[in-house]
Amino acid sequence: MESFELFGNIDHAKHFIENIKTGKFLFSFVISYTETCEIPGVTFAGADTDSIKFTPPGDAEYLHYGYCKTIDKIPMTPDGKPTPAVLTKTALESASIPHLTINAGSKIFPQLPFIDTGLSFGKNILTQDAMTDSQVSHAVDYGRIVGRTLASLTDCLIIGESIPGGTTTALAVLQALGFDAKVSSSIPNNPVELKNKIVNSALERINSDHPYNVVAKVGDSMIPFVAGMLSSASDSSKVMLAGGTQMAAVLAFASKIGFNEENTVIGTTSYITHDDSANFTNLVKKIANVPIISIDPSLKNSQYLGLRAFSEGFAKEGVGAGGSIISSMIKTGNTSKQFLEIVEKEYHRLFAT
Amino acid sequence: MESFELFGNIDHAKHFIENIKTGKFLFSFVISYTETCEIPGVTFAGADTDSIKFTPPGDAEYLHYGYCKTIDKIPMTPDGKPTPAVLTKTALESASIPHLTINAGSKIFPQLPFIDTGLSFGKNILTQDAMTDSQVSHAVDYGRIVGRTLASLTDCLIIGESIPGGTTTALAVLQALGFDAKVSSSIPNNPVELKNKIVNSALERINSDHPYNVVAKVGDSMIPFVAGMLSSASDSSKVMLAGGTQMAAVLAFASKIGFNEENTVIGTTSYITHDDSANFTNLVKKIANVPIISIDPSLKNSQYLGLRAFSEGFAKEGVGAGGSIISSMIKTGNTSKQFLEIVEKEYHRLFAT
Repeated sequence: MESFELFGNIDHAKHFIENIKTGKFLFSFVISYTETCEIPGVTFAGADTDSIKFTPPGDAEYLHYGYCKTIDKIPMTPDGKPTPAVLTKTALESASIPHLTINAGSKIFPQLPFIDTGLSFGKNILTQDAMTDSQVSHAVDYGRIVGRTLASLTDCLIIGESIPGGTTTALAVLQALGFDAKVSSSIPNNPVELKNKIVNSALERINSDHPYNVVAKVGDSMIPFVAGMLSSASDSSKVMLAGGTQMAAVLAFASKIGFNEENTVIGTTSYITHDDSANFTNLVKKIANVPIISIDPSLKNSQYLGLRAFSEGFAKEGVGAGGSIISSMIKTGNTSKQFLEIVEKEYHRLFAT
Repeated sequence: MESFELFGNIDHAKHFIENIKTGKFLFSFVISYTETCEIPGVTFAGADTDSIKFTPPGDAEYLHYGYCKTIDKIPMTPDGKPTPAVLTKTALESASIPHLTINAGSKIFPQLPFIDTGLSFGKNILTQDAMTDSQVSHAVDYGRIVGRTLASLTDCLIIGESIPGGTTTALAVLQALGFDAKVSSSIPNNPVELKNKIVNSALERINSDHPYNVVAKVGDSMIPFVAGMLSSASDSSKVMLAGGTQMAAVLAFASKIGFNEENTVIGTTSYITHDDSANFTNLVKKIANVPIISIDPSLKNSQYLGLRAFSEGFAKEGVGAGGSIISSMIKTGNTSKQFLEIVEKEYHRLFAT
């Protein structure tokens, strides 16, 4: 099996991996939306501004069908770099890991069966509160119900997300909860100034340190929903939060509502853990005693520009790509080299014709 | 363990029970609606005509929370007899069997997370087609997706339903597919004349023997959706169709689209299998080589009128009650006497104050 890079509580991470080797995995894919992504320059998760809202349902449809229904092509950046869902789909299929889509505030519904939560998308935190306190309660409560149910059906619940603009709301929540977070994003030469301006403006509205109120003012629907899932699921099964900065924000909020650290890890790519501008591993250490398992999927060795781009800082993470690759390798024993071969096949299938 | 009454392929039924004894169960609860239920006298699944549409979401909420959110009290008949969900909830909880709600055309959404399918409720088959052929395709396709996913998460998928007026559409589908079905319903002294009048009027519109077209003209959304679930789920796991006449209609339609008989049983109550007016066991035998497992939950011995009523022909089945009781007994080894004790506790909790 591939050797992963481990951060934080190494023994805990090793024990986690050993424990789930022969177990069942379930990938839950939480799609959401924040109007913060409509601020020009915040995200490239979509070919143009009008198409950003189709990225979460498009990711869900591609994961399931191998093609999209609400849009013609799979989600990509304006210059044609594909969604990290390509990595996720390849990983899950190679290991026969089942998946479920959960709608926690997507602006557009995906054309497939999904778990609905009745949650709305978050408002633009530059100019207004993302949601009300009672919407945060709803998100946590429904997250807890979904987490409890899914945990009863698997040994390891992987949670991934797709929420364009979500790194900015995650940065705001982390800072509001007292963590000196720097944000990695889907764009190299991260538009730090723009994001800081948005976050600072949002933080000015905060007048309470109640975590529900903090998330209501500067967060998004995904953060309290996934924190609720983690809170109940980690009671009875292993949970792998698959992602970067957004999952750090989930962890920070979940620490306020309670969850079982013993059963929790973060699974992500080396493109996140080796991104010095974000300092992700130190951030997580400050938030909770939860180890990070990191994988280098060897995409720098790809013959395809669109796959090499991930290793160059474009869409370094998302759609639970890192955690899915790690889980697939734990289950199948595949190496990064083998993963690269199969993901190149999928890339070829998508783009060769 | 309680001894069940077995009908049809007895060896197959015994093998099924032996096989799932140590396995994991998942109860999937499919809620739907047909406007056929608005014809006065067709159903008593609701305190009055206006409240019938709240019965499916009310059943789902009660199963999950132990009380309802969209209505004040749990669903009941005009004279106060409770929904069979009381039996289902007691059974599932006593055996720690997890459940998921699936919305396949309910008029009202339940206030809890549920799997959504985008299906609409069926129209009144007395006066018009229930739906279009393409809506039937959608139901089958989405049912197949949900069935495949849920089967990958369990060893035995129990499928129950709540669709007021559903016995009438089931009767129409069965007759249209060539089976001499007589319908049991939630009312003793079954309004046979009224139902036959509706069915005969609906059958007049049929001008093709294509099963999709038959269901489109005289069926409801639940039948093709659950048939789709059965079709894919029975490929990889055991499936227990929990119900009476409606599940016979599902089986009849599923026989047209294909499913694995080896992995399938019907689980129901003795109130259905001993109802001579409906002749359920012979009907199922004609449809498919699928055995029936039947349980007498001993409710005739209850101190409560509302529980004895089930044994007297009111709401003899529904919300997957029979299959849930059977599954809980297989898992826990409980007897009917033990089940009666715990269901009386639940009844007391609901109605004593």
